Amino acid sequence: MSVKFLTRTRELVHNKLSSVISSSSLIDEAMRYSVLSNSKAIRPGLVMASGILNDNLTKDSLITLACSVELIHTYSLIHDDLPSMDDDDMRRGKDSSHIRFGEANAILAGDALHDLAFELIANDDDMSDAAKVDAVNILARASGSSGMVLGQYLDIESEKLNSDLDLDDMEKIHSLKTGKLIQASILMGQLESSLDNKKQIMLSDFGSKIGLAFQVFDDILDETGDSSILGKSIKSDIKNHKQTYVKVIGLEQSNFIADQLAAESIGILDSMGLGESISTLKSLAEYMVNRNR
Amino acid sequence: MSVKFLTRTRELVHNKLSSVISSSSLIDEAMRYSVLSNSKAIRPGLVMASGILNDNLTKDSLITLACSVELIHTYSLIHDDLPSMDDDDMRRGKDSSHIRFGEANAILAGDALHDLAFELIANDDDMSDAAKVDAVNILARASGSSGMVLGQYLDIESEKLNSDLDLDDMEKIHSLKTGKLIQASILMGQLESSLDNKKQIMLSDFGSKIGLAFQVFDDILDETGDSSILGKSIKSDIKNHKQTYVKVIGLEQSNFIADQLAAESIGILDSMGLGESISTLKSLAEYMVNRNR
Repeated sequence: MSVKFLTRTRELVHNKLSSVISSSSLIDEAMRYSVLSNSKAIRPGLVMASGILNDNLTKDSLITLACSVELIHTYSLIHDDLPSMDDDDMRRGKDSSHIRFGEANAILAGDALHDLAFELIANDDDMSDAAKVDAVNILARASGSSGMVLGQYLDIESEKLNSDLDLDDMEKIHSLKTGKLIQASILMGQLESSLDNKKQIMLSDFGSKIGLAFQVFDDILDETGDSSILGKSIKSDIKNHKQTYVKVIGLEQSNFIADQLAAESIGILDSMGLGESISTLKSLAEYMVNRNR
Repeated sequence: MSVKFLTRTRELVHNKLSSVISSSSLIDEAMRYSVLSNSKAIRPGLVMASGILNDNLTKDSLITLACSVELIHTYSLIHDDLPSMDDDDMRRGKDSSHIRFGEANAILAGDALHDLAFELIANDDDMSDAAKVDAVNILARASGSSGMVLGQYLDIESEKLNSDLDLDDMEKIHSLKTGKLIQASILMGQLESSLDNKKQIMLSDFGSKIGLAFQVFDDILDETGDSSILGKSIKSDIKNHKQTYVKVIGLEQSNFIADQLAAESIGILDSMGLGESISTLKSLAEYMVNRNR
């Protein structure tokens, strides 16, 4: 069910992005190459699934917001893959952007995707200006120097350590690097929310927990996964001397923590008393922590 | 007069940025290092000087907008200086960001400054939501794949040519790479403008022309300037085989074109019939095209 929902979400996101990104320069081509590629579309899916619970956003606006989150995610992958960062040659089943287009163009394409995320929000036809301002704020905070960028910095720094990180530091890095944008995806679906405050906070907590669970699973998959299924290099964390959950506490313990976080996340959703309307988000959460295990 | 105005503007911008960027990570340090450095503050100055003509924005909001333009400009300089781009070691009188902090941190600091530009707009205390949305839109469009990023791409591409560009192509690159953000600075000061439509269009045209003039002068200064005054490497355009006005049409013709564009720009301001209130913008325009000639 989730796979179908994600496939449909990806289609909607790709349709919109395909129509707004032109093909008039190599930078446009590089933008299209990365953002229209075979993404799992989990973050856009979270926007849409969160939006199902909100009566105050139109489907078109949810698609706008889903696109903006996917744009930020994609720009960050392009920059993270650069030789001076994680130096990854493969992404989403094909050459990384800098392998295909060269380093300068990859940096520029990332920068342009970054701008486009905000441009799309500003130009949405249905959302109120207040909702747009909130969206810009949520996205910028999740991405910037106290969010995703900080997480990537700490992640790179941790590679240089001679000893392993402790679990708290690991959790901090993962929450920043992956969790913040996952949580932002949930919040985007709740702009001008029709839910009461308490439920909004519960959803935000869910976003934070499932984001961390997702990243722990990513660490597990880097160890145990098949690169042809994952579409990116495996063991790249090991190659980069990255501090992963698996490295720090072992595979068994990592699986235990991931399961625990997943159960807590889904427990939050169950306790919200929203009945059937929560089912899409719930099955998406289950999907996020059960990929190819 | 302009120098004093720019110094004061820089002070206001630095005060605000200094209070919003923390010092809790090396990325914060790298952000502060670049954005609190010895900038000429021309773009922030244009926001403030344009804003003098607009009764509908508070001074605090103008400072917010000036900061956001300076943040975008600074992020673009950090990325442009990278080894895979223009490979410049010196910027604003000191080491480039990647020389000081390493390439990965420079890319990340640029990305975080990029986010902060939008975050500041979203969190301004005085502007209406409508004005904020306009500001985000203006800034994102000026910076992205049909603006500054495209200009930088075309500029790098032009280095690979065996023959010189023609003047139209040169003008296109310069207008995109520098002109768009200069023009955006003018437009930022005119959000919710109290001027009539015709005058707003005239100001926009002024922004476009003075932006191009400014870049032609930059080409001239790269040839004739003193690096200790300019605070960046000179002859770097030649080193990079860049297509500059000076290379394509010679120094004398470049000076002629710059003077002509400057005269046209200032002519637009004179013809607006705004009396004394235009004087700050006018002297700023004069300053932009007479630096150290």
